[in-house]
Amino acid sequence: MAFCCQSPIKTVTIPQPKAFAKTKPLFRCNLSLPSRSPLTSTEPEPVYASVKAFAPATVANLGPGFDFLGCAVDGVGDFVSLSIDPHVHPGEIAISEITGDNAKKLSKNPLWNCAGIAAIEVMKMLGIRSVGLSLSLEKGLPLGSGLGSSAASAAAAAVAVNEIFGGKLGLEELVMAGLKSEEKVSGYHADNIAPAIMGGFVLISNYEPLEFVRLSFPEEKELLFVLASPEFEAPTKKMRAVLPLEIGMPHHVWNCSQAGALVAAVLQGDSAGLGKAVSADKIVEPRRAPLIPGMEAVKKAAIEAGAFGCTISGAGPTAVAVTDNAEKGKVIGERMVDAFLRDGNLKAAASVQRLDRTGARLIGSIPR
Amino acid sequence: MAFCCQSPIKTVTIPQPKAFAKTKPLFRCNLSLPSRSPLTSTEPEPVYASVKAFAPATVANLGPGFDFLGCAVDGVGDFVSLSIDPHVHPGEIAISEITGDNAKKLSKNPLWNCAGIAAIEVMKMLGIRSVGLSLSLEKGLPLGSGLGSSAASAAAAAVAVNEIFGGKLGLEELVMAGLKSEEKVSGYHADNIAPAIMGGFVLISNYEPLEFVRLSFPEEKELLFVLASPEFEAPTKKMRAVLPLEIGMPHHVWNCSQAGALVAAVLQGDSAGLGKAVSADKIVEPRRAPLIPGMEAVKKAAIEAGAFGCTISGAGPTAVAVTDNAEKGKVIGERMVDAFLRDGNLKAAASVQRLDRTGARLIGSIPR
Repeated sequence: MAFCCQSPIKTVTIPQPKAFAKTKPLFRCNLSLPSRSPLTSTEPEPVYASVKAFAPATVANLGPGFDFLGCAVDGVGDFVSLSIDPHVHPGEIAISEITGDNAKKLSKNPLWNCAGIAAIEVMKMLGIRSVGLSLSLEKGLPLGSGLGSSAASAAAAAVAVNEIFGGKLGLEELVMAGLKSEEKVSGYHADNIAPAIMGGFVLISNYEPLEFVRLSFPEEKELLFVLASPEFEAPTKKMRAVLPLEIGMPHHVWNCSQAGALVAAVLQGDSAGLGKAVSADKIVEPRRAPLIPGMEAVKKAAIEAGAFGCTISGAGPTAVAVTDNAEKGKVIGERMVDAFLRDGNLKAAASVQRLDRTGARLIGSIPR
Repeated sequence: MAFCCQSPIKTVTIPQPKAFAKTKPLFRCNLSLPSRSPLTSTEPEPVYASVKAFAPATVANLGPGFDFLGCAVDGVGDFVSLSIDPHVHPGEIAISEITGDNAKKLSKNPLWNCAGIAAIEVMKMLGIRSVGLSLSLEKGLPLGSGLGSSAASAAAAAVAVNEIFGGKLGLEELVMAGLKSEEKVSGYHADNIAPAIMGGFVLISNYEPLEFVRLSFPEEKELLFVLASPEFEAPTKKMRAVLPLEIGMPHHVWNCSQAGALVAAVLQGDSAGLGKAVSADKIVEPRRAPLIPGMEAVKKAAIEAGAFGCTISGAGPTAVAVTDNAEKGKVIGERMVDAFLRDGNLKAAASVQRLDRTGARLIGSIPR
């Protein structure tokens, strides 16, 4: 979640790296991306006068995929509009506007705003010195919902800055930039930011150095998520504190096997197996679910209504259920909302969303 | 490992199920097998006078795949020859001969021999009452080597009995029959018997009911295992006793992520990623390796020689390294053997073997 301190519009000077090569973050991944020529100290020219980018919501802590596996969800997310602004000092960035629910809770100081931090990182990586930027953030995601709100802002901003300068950076660099933002506002974890930027499922296999594996759910198969978000602020600290420090060997082996089954289900396009594995966590969900009123009943209701599985999205309070049928998804969502009200005394709203296979992207641009 | 008690040739009467439906074991898996008509009390006729079956070695406890993931290795394994024998009482089975290293350590009583137990289970499932069988076991695998010796015997026997009667049972039933054998001689685990019967990689996702997922390593990609077996009897009880009862959350998350990465590497045909994940276990291997003299040096030597990764096969003492190049595999094997001698004072033998994609199969038959 982004910080809550408010401040007037403030611009930030981007520290210039002495040599890009020295500051380039260490990472490896198994992506086969089009190779790009190594960045030099030559500053790229802006290609657009302004751009608009979208980044999707993400579901992390996917049952037994706790802390290392996340996926992107289409149809909901954050928007960043970015313009070349002669009123902003060259090499600096300003946040001009934040709109959407709870916008007032977010800082307009780029150093304290997830979109701002990611944008600054990308400007650093590109070595921007001669152009000032103005950023407008449109929050489509509620804060603290367990749907990767901070990651969506960071991802949209990172992509917007990269694209306005001609898309010189690869996905890995954008993830690194977004991770800097996540580190400052919600902890050093990449299981939201990586899928927010790349789409689909992403498995984080290492942090030192950062390594990740993209997992493609087959194009011809359907995968839908039913997201039921109650009006409830999940107690973030308690959610972390309630995790066991030690895990018995049988539960460890069980969750490992379910993590493996989950990855297999993704790659094999087995939405039923995916739901089953997501639902099978014996370590984290059993501790966290009781902290979200009604969650256990919501899971039960989702499965009774035909969902392949259900768990907590991120650290909650949103519940996420898996299906492959939109009509059925609607019914599942209604049952989940009913259960939140009946057993948790919480109002909730549900929606059915597709797996997002693209990740953060440009949705509009005005040439210079 | 099979039991060591010796006994004269003994035949065993196969108890007849009152109704097959009642004794049919519960299981589910994601296999798409040709459906077969449900077995009735009609006893199948033998199709062959005799058959010979082979079942491959298997590597279980694959690093972070501890206790739930195994794979089959071609080129080494056990053979079972099976004949219709009028000298054996109808509905019974006899073990006529056991050959190979350590053959004398194995019982010829079918009730105490892994091949015998699996054969009896398949006869029960088929409802064999009118035909007597004579079984000959040729051990190609050393006992207690960590290469699934008992599973290979059971798998070859199960397939032989099924095939001599026309192959009425599916792979799942054969796994269930083999699991009965494993349960009696080495514990209720399916991560050797499932790949021994089905080939490739198999993930056991549940035991109640038994559920497994086949993981296909892409046909066009090469995957080789370097097996280095020292002359050393791994202390089985100590190997189990040394496992931690409780696991810290960071190590749990790490191993889960590596289990996921391992499954992804298998399905994506990424032999380098597979080796890396296999090598990355922070829970079991660090406890067990010190009990096998030289193992830590062997792992280091394998990786220095270019292996993608190395770990203990099963509960040892065999070390298994991963590569995609046969020539390199030979060198890796030599270095592993050197390291066993130098650091562990153990003589060892190494071989380079392909992933077995087929599993237990008929290799010869004589029609009636």
